[in-house]
Amino acid sequence: MSAETAPAEAFDAVDVIRAKRDRHELTDPQIDWVIDAYTRGAVADEQMSALAMAILLNGMTHRETARWTTAMIASGERLDFSSLRSSSGGPRPTADKHSTGGVGDKITLPLAPLVAVFGVAVPQLSGRGLGHTGGTLDKLESIPGWRASLTNAEMMAQLNDVGAVVCAAGAGLAPADKKLYALRDVTGTVEAIPLIASSIMSKKIAEGTGALVLDVKVGSGAFMKDEESARELAQTMVALGQDAGVHTVALLTDMGTPLGLTAGNAIEVEESLEVLAGGGPEDVVGLTVRLAEEMLEGAGVQGDPAAALRDGRAMDVWRHMIAAQGGDPDAPLPVAKESDTVYAPADGVLVGLDALSVGVAAWRLGAGRARKEDAVQAGAGVRLHAKPGAVVRAGEPLMTLLTDTPERFSRAREALEGAVTIAPEGSRPAQRLILDRIA
Amino acid sequence: MSAETAPAEAFDAVDVIRAKRDRHELTDPQIDWVIDAYTRGAVADEQMSALAMAILLNGMTHRETARWTTAMIASGERLDFSSLRSSSGGPRPTADKHSTGGVGDKITLPLAPLVAVFGVAVPQLSGRGLGHTGGTLDKLESIPGWRASLTNAEMMAQLNDVGAVVCAAGAGLAPADKKLYALRDVTGTVEAIPLIASSIMSKKIAEGTGALVLDVKVGSGAFMKDEESARELAQTMVALGQDAGVHTVALLTDMGTPLGLTAGNAIEVEESLEVLAGGGPEDVVGLTVRLAEEMLEGAGVQGDPAAALRDGRAMDVWRHMIAAQGGDPDAPLPVAKESDTVYAPADGVLVGLDALSVGVAAWRLGAGRARKEDAVQAGAGVRLHAKPGAVVRAGEPLMTLLTDTPERFSRAREALEGAVTIAPEGSRPAQRLILDRIA
Repeated sequence: MSAETAPAEAFDAVDVIRAKRDRHELTDPQIDWVIDAYTRGAVADEQMSALAMAILLNGMTHRETARWTTAMIASGERLDFSSLRSSSGGPRPTADKHSTGGVGDKITLPLAPLVAVFGVAVPQLSGRGLGHTGGTLDKLESIPGWRASLTNAEMMAQLNDVGAVVCAAGAGLAPADKKLYALRDVTGTVEAIPLIASSIMSKKIAEGTGALVLDVKVGSGAFMKDEESARELAQTMVALGQDAGVHTVALLTDMGTPLGLTAGNAIEVEESLEVLAGGGPEDVVGLTVRLAEEMLEGAGVQGDPAAALRDGRAMDVWRHMIAAQGGDPDAPLPVAKESDTVYAPADGVLVGLDALSVGVAAWRLGAGRARKEDAVQAGAGVRLHAKPGAVVRAGEPLMTLLTDTPERFSRAREALEGAVTIAPEGSRPAQRLILDRIA
Repeated sequence: MSAETAPAEAFDAVDVIRAKRDRHELTDPQIDWVIDAYTRGAVADEQMSALAMAILLNGMTHRETARWTTAMIASGERLDFSSLRSSSGGPRPTADKHSTGGVGDKITLPLAPLVAVFGVAVPQLSGRGLGHTGGTLDKLESIPGWRASLTNAEMMAQLNDVGAVVCAAGAGLAPADKKLYALRDVTGTVEAIPLIASSIMSKKIAEGTGALVLDVKVGSGAFMKDEESARELAQTMVALGQDAGVHTVALLTDMGTPLGLTAGNAIEVEESLEVLAGGGPEDVVGLTVRLAEEMLEGAGVQGDPAAALRDGRAMDVWRHMIAAQGGDPDAPLPVAKESDTVYAPADGVLVGLDALSVGVAAWRLGAGRARKEDAVQAGAGVRLHAKPGAVVRAGEPLMTLLTDTPERFSRAREALEGAVTIAPEGSRPAQRLILDRIA
C-alpha cells in the first residue's frame, strides 16, 4: 500500500507494527513518530494496541525504551522546579518517591513531610487506587476538606511555603502516557515491562524531580509477583532515570503481606498519624525511614529522619501540608458504620497473611473501586490485629472488616479464604522487608 | 476488575486476550464469544487487534483454528446448493477453487466455465485486487456490461441455467471475517496463518461448496514467500475443509514468475479467451487443466478438461456465463491509451522474471488499487514477450507497459529494476509450476 499512497505522515503505522512484530528494533524516528501520531489521533487505538501487544511479547531494547520514554515526555509539558530556593537562598533540591503499589502502602503520607523537614522539596504527584491496590489520593481525601487537584502555580507555591505537596498529576504531563495507559488497561497489554517502566518514568522525568526513589513491590499483593520481573522493572526504571539526569535508586520490597496493620483509606491516614507521632508499626516506620534516607542521599542532603519522626518535626510539616490543600488536620476521620471480626482458627504462630487476599477484601468492602468513575468509602477497609511472626490463640480476633454497606462482608470473607497460615509454635515466617537495592 | 463488575457478557475481553498472550489454548466458549461479541461491537477494535497480534505471535492449535472458523461461519448466513439438480435429476455436485493470489493469475476465468462443462456447478465467489495481486472481479469488469454483484437468488438461477458464476461475495457471508479482515489490514496482523486460513475457509464453507481446490501460491509474487509457510497454510486449510465435510485439496504452485504473458485486467481476459479457444500460454493451460481435474475428482465426476478447452465446450459456457451477468462476450475489450517497451539488456537465456516486480509495475500502471475505494484502469498492465527459459537478444522487446496515464511509466520502470535475469546461453531456469499436492 505504502508504495502507492503519498503519505502525509512520516511513517506508516503498519510498517512500525510489523517491524516490532518481526523482532526488529524500532528506530528513534519511528518511536518519536508513533507516540506523537498516537497522541494526535493519526495512529488509531487498534494500531497502538497491536503494537503494544508486539512490544509485550517481543520486548524492547534499553535504547528503544529510553526513546519511547523521551517521546512520551515530549508529548506534554515539563515542570521546572529550578526557581525553588532553599533557606540559604540557593537552589532547593527536589526528591520524589514512587511505589509500584501494594496493600496497606501508606508510606507517601508520612514520607513526604518527613523529607521536607530537611529542606528538600517533595513534589509528590500521586494517583487513585484501581483494583486491590490503594491510591494515595483516595486515602488523603478521607481528611475533611482536603483537595487533590492543584494548579501548577498552587503546587509551586506550596513547595516554597511548606516544602511538600501530594496532589494529582495535571493533565498536561505526558498526555501520551495517559492515553496509552487507558488503552493498555482494556487490551491485556499492561504487563509489559518496557511499557510499565516508560509510563512511570515519563511522568517522573516530566515532573522535573532531581532525585527519585522507586519502591518496587514484589509479592502476591504487588503488580510484580516474582523477584525476577520486579528486578527487571527496577533496573529498567533506574537506567531510564539516570539517562534523563535524575538521581534514581530503586528498592525491591516485599509485598507478600500488607504493610502495617491497616488497608483502607481513613484507617491508613490514622496509622500514618501514629508514625508521624513517633509510633506506628515497625515495618511502616522502618520503610519510611529507609526511603527518606535514600531521598535525602539522592538530594545530597544530610539528616536523621528517625529523629524527625520522634521529635514532631515531620508532624508539623504534615499539618501545614494538609492545611495548605484545604484539609483540617484536627478533624475526626470518617469511621465505617459496620464491622465484622475474623478470628484465628487455631493456636500457633501466624506465618502467612496474604497481601492480595487482604487487598481484595478491602477493595470489596468499599475501600477501592472497580471502575475509574466509582467512589470509594472513606471508612472501609481491613484492620489487622496480628502480623506474621505473632503467636495467636484460636478464637482471638485476627482482623476487623470495616464497611458502610454490610452486604459486602460475605464477599470480603470469600477473598480471605486461605489468606491466613498458622504454623506450630516455634515456627518463624520469612521476614525480609527490603529485598535489594538497585542503583 | 472482573471480580467487582457484574458482567453482562459471558467473558471479559481482557481475560481472553491475556489467555492467548500467555500461550494458553482458548476454549470453545471463549472463541465463540469473542467472535460473536466482536461482530456485535461488544469487543472493541483495539481489543481484537491485540488478540490478533497475540495469535500471530503465539499461534493457535488446530482445534482453536477450527473453532474460530466455525464461529466466523456462524456470524452470518450459509448458502445451500442442495436444491441444484443435475441433468439426470439428481443432486448437482458443486466445486470451487480458491487462489491465495498472485501476478497474472487469471485461472478462474477459464476454469469456472471449463468445470461447468461436466455438469458440476461452480459458485465462484471472488474478490477485488488490493496491492500488487490482481482481483478476478476487476478483470471481468473490463468486459463491457458485466456486473459482479448478484443476489443469492440470481446466483442460484445462474448456477442452474449456466452452471458457473463468478461474482462478489454477498455481505451476509461471514460478516465477522469481513470486519476482522479490515482490522487486520491496518494493524499488521494479516500474516497469521491461523487467521488467513480461517478467513478463507469460513467464506468457502459458508458458501456451501461440496468440493474445494486451493491454489496456494509460493514465491515473490505470492503472499507466502517460502514453501514452508505456504505448506503450513495449505495443510491448515485442508484440515479445516475436511473437518467441515468439504472435500478439500490444495496445490502448492510457483509464483516466482507471473502466470502467462499478461498481468492486468482486460489483457488477462484476452489471454483467458485464448485459453478457452484452445490456445494460450502453456503454464496457464496446464494449471487450468490440472485444477479442473482436481475439482472434478473432488466432485466425483469423470471428464477430460483438456478436450473441453480444445473443442470449444468451455468457451460456450463462458459466453453464457458472461452474458448472464450482463456482459457482452463479443464486445471489444478496452485498450490502454499509451504503451512503453522494455528491452532485453543482453543476449542469453531469460532465467528470472520476478513476479513481485511485474505485479508492482502493473499496479503502478493503474491495473491495481492502493485503497479499496480506488478505481482501476481496465487497459493497464504489463504484457510479457518472453518467459523464463526463452533465448533473448539484446535490444529485443521483453515487456510492454500499458496505461492510460503515461506519467506512471517511470515508477513502473523503477519497480522493474532488477526484475530480469539473463544468463549465458545453455542455462536453464528452475521451472516447476506445481510444487506439491496436499490432500
